[in-house]
Amino acid sequence: MNIHEFLASPPEASKRTGPHDRIVLSSRVRLARNLRGMSFPGWAKKPERIKALETVRPAVESLEQMSEAFSESMDNLTALDKQILVERHLISREHAAKNAGSGLVLNREESLCVMINEEDHLRMQSLRPGLQIKEAWQAIDQIDSLVEKKLDYAFSPTLGYLTACPTNLGTGIRVSAMLHLPALVISEQINQIIQAVNKLGLAVRGLYGEGTEALGNVFQVSNQMTLGELETDIVERLNKVLAQLIEHEENGRASLLENKPKVVFNQIGRAYGILANAHSISSKETMNLLSLFRLGIDLGLFPGTARSLVDELFLITQPAHLQRNYSEKLSADERDLLRSDMLRERLRSVSRPHTVPATPTSSKLDKPTE
Amino acid sequence: MNIHEFLASPPEASKRTGPHDRIVLSSRVRLARNLRGMSFPGWAKKPERIKALETVRPAVESLEQMSEAFSESMDNLTALDKQILVERHLISREHAAKNAGSGLVLNREESLCVMINEEDHLRMQSLRPGLQIKEAWQAIDQIDSLVEKKLDYAFSPTLGYLTACPTNLGTGIRVSAMLHLPALVISEQINQIIQAVNKLGLAVRGLYGEGTEALGNVFQVSNQMTLGELETDIVERLNKVLAQLIEHEENGRASLLENKPKVVFNQIGRAYGILANAHSISSKETMNLLSLFRLGIDLGLFPGTARSLVDELFLITQPAHLQRNYSEKLSADERDLLRSDMLRERLRSVSRPHTVPATPTSSKLDKPTE
Repeated sequence: MNIHEFLASPPEASKRTGPHDRIVLSSRVRLARNLRGMSFPGWAKKPERIKALETVRPAVESLEQMSEAFSESMDNLTALDKQILVERHLISREHAAKNAGSGLVLNREESLCVMINEEDHLRMQSLRPGLQIKEAWQAIDQIDSLVEKKLDYAFSPTLGYLTACPTNLGTGIRVSAMLHLPALVISEQINQIIQAVNKLGLAVRGLYGEGTEALGNVFQVSNQMTLGELETDIVERLNKVLAQLIEHEENGRASLLENKPKVVFNQIGRAYGILANAHSISSKETMNLLSLFRLGIDLGLFPGTARSLVDELFLITQPAHLQRNYSEKLSADERDLLRSDMLRERLRSVSRPHTVPATPTSSKLDKPTE
Repeated sequence: MNIHEFLASPPEASKRTGPHDRIVLSSRVRLARNLRGMSFPGWAKKPERIKALETVRPAVESLEQMSEAFSESMDNLTALDKQILVERHLISREHAAKNAGSGLVLNREESLCVMINEEDHLRMQSLRPGLQIKEAWQAIDQIDSLVEKKLDYAFSPTLGYLTACPTNLGTGIRVSAMLHLPALVISEQINQIIQAVNKLGLAVRGLYGEGTEALGNVFQVSNQMTLGELETDIVERLNKVLAQLIEHEENGRASLLENKPKVVFNQIGRAYGILANAHSISSKETMNLLSLFRLGIDLGLFPGTARSLVDELFLITQPAHLQRNYSEKLSADERDLLRSDMLRERLRSVSRPHTVPATPTSSKLDKPTE
């Protein structure tokens, strides 16, 4: 199977489960690294970028962890392939715009992904379902040590790892988690929470990172500082904040269910009703309604329906994932029709919400470990 | 059974069927009459209004057609009774504001209703389901002849029947029909149609008459002129225009189904999804969604579901009809919750729309007779 076939087949990663995946969709750690003595990708002329790519790529390919990986030059990927990679959060939008001189090494589990010549020569990422930032850190730390044996990293004894943008200088680490926080949004606590998290030196962003909207009540929380702190301390600090956010969201859900059950049932019921019966629906509306449907599953309103159904739909209703099923280029209007067809079909077997929850919420049972 | 009990029991009139009730919800003819030598109700002092009431009421009560009717002084009705009468289109909002000195005679079929001391001394109305304005005219004409034998009407040989407002002078007749025109609204032809109808000397109004919104895609069409034309000509002319409107609406439905089926399915599907799953819904949203649900039934998307279900819901989800089931005064928010409970319950047995219509629309079979 080549990468085109891989990206055209149903995504498996969305079906994997992890700790606290009621609220934490995924964890990620990425490291920014550069080659000593070579211009950063944004400054390098094309021959120099190609030279960097040709240096980095075999070093990454030769890792045992990448033995079955896809290794691609970005110009070998179609626009659709790239868009699918973005929708799966495997590459950045910026990297999707790259062509010859940039590359990608991705393992089949989609748990390791290295972007070559994105903003830095290397952006190495480890991804895990649920709350597993420690595990993600350990995995990428191991990769980094192995790569460092093969490549001469740009490193300053005083500053640490050198990076194209000073915001990554030092450790080059960005630890992040995707959180599903519908209760904090519905109860209008989210802005206050975001401010509090910001004061702890962490950034809160939308679904596709910096400057994007929080579609589907999904928020990305990550460290801001990369300098003057140990990687393990950064991981530890984020872990603590995430544990608190999980608790806030769980408390928010319990409180909504106790104090405003009708508001919750109304939003979830309408979301389900529209998802199961619309004949045209945009990607944005879909995400926002799927978020409420996911909350309904978490609250026990859809007994027998697995959370993974929503997580898969969240992915496969996005534009490029929809397009990959069709040979002709679809317009946005056509996608809206096909998206609604897919949703109606997949929700056909899901019964109307049991608005007296079948089971109590697991908020008390499902506390994060620290 | 007294009138309070009658108004508190389930409305039967909405279940009756009539010709062309796919599109024409109801037909009505009302006659305005006044007593000779007595001030119009708006000018009369209270003793004179009471004298008029005491003159008119027995004359109406004694009609054979009113042998089982409710005859009430308006001060004997509660605010809730009055509001229910307004929601059933039996009395005007203006009449609902009246108290001692005004009255009401209503037969049990809700097909004859006489308001006493509304704007005129008598406002006699005949109501029929579907397109039956001729039948309604004949019924009220007969009542009028019988009443005229008992009362001395204010009549001028040159002007005809005298009325409080000159817009009713002459025949005192207002012939109207309630039309459900969702296809003309969805296809954005409605404003053009309204203008054309206006040019024919007919008025097009919203659900509750003059100056009200066209909630639920329901429009009231009526004659404007009451002077210089025979009643039968007015009835005939309106009948012709209604036949054309029915045809336009049927053509609009067929055309939407042929050219924009997804637009129609999308609106109907979403309406059904929300009605069947919301946990809070306003009266206005309910009417607009029920209109689309009704269209879906007409188009064969809900085989096995009778149109009368919608017509009943259209009535019983309105504020006063909801309130009558509860002893404590409900707030608007409480009504929104109870309305959604009622809708979910009543739609529980209605399956998701068959978006490939089970039967062709009956537009070709269901042409109005002229």
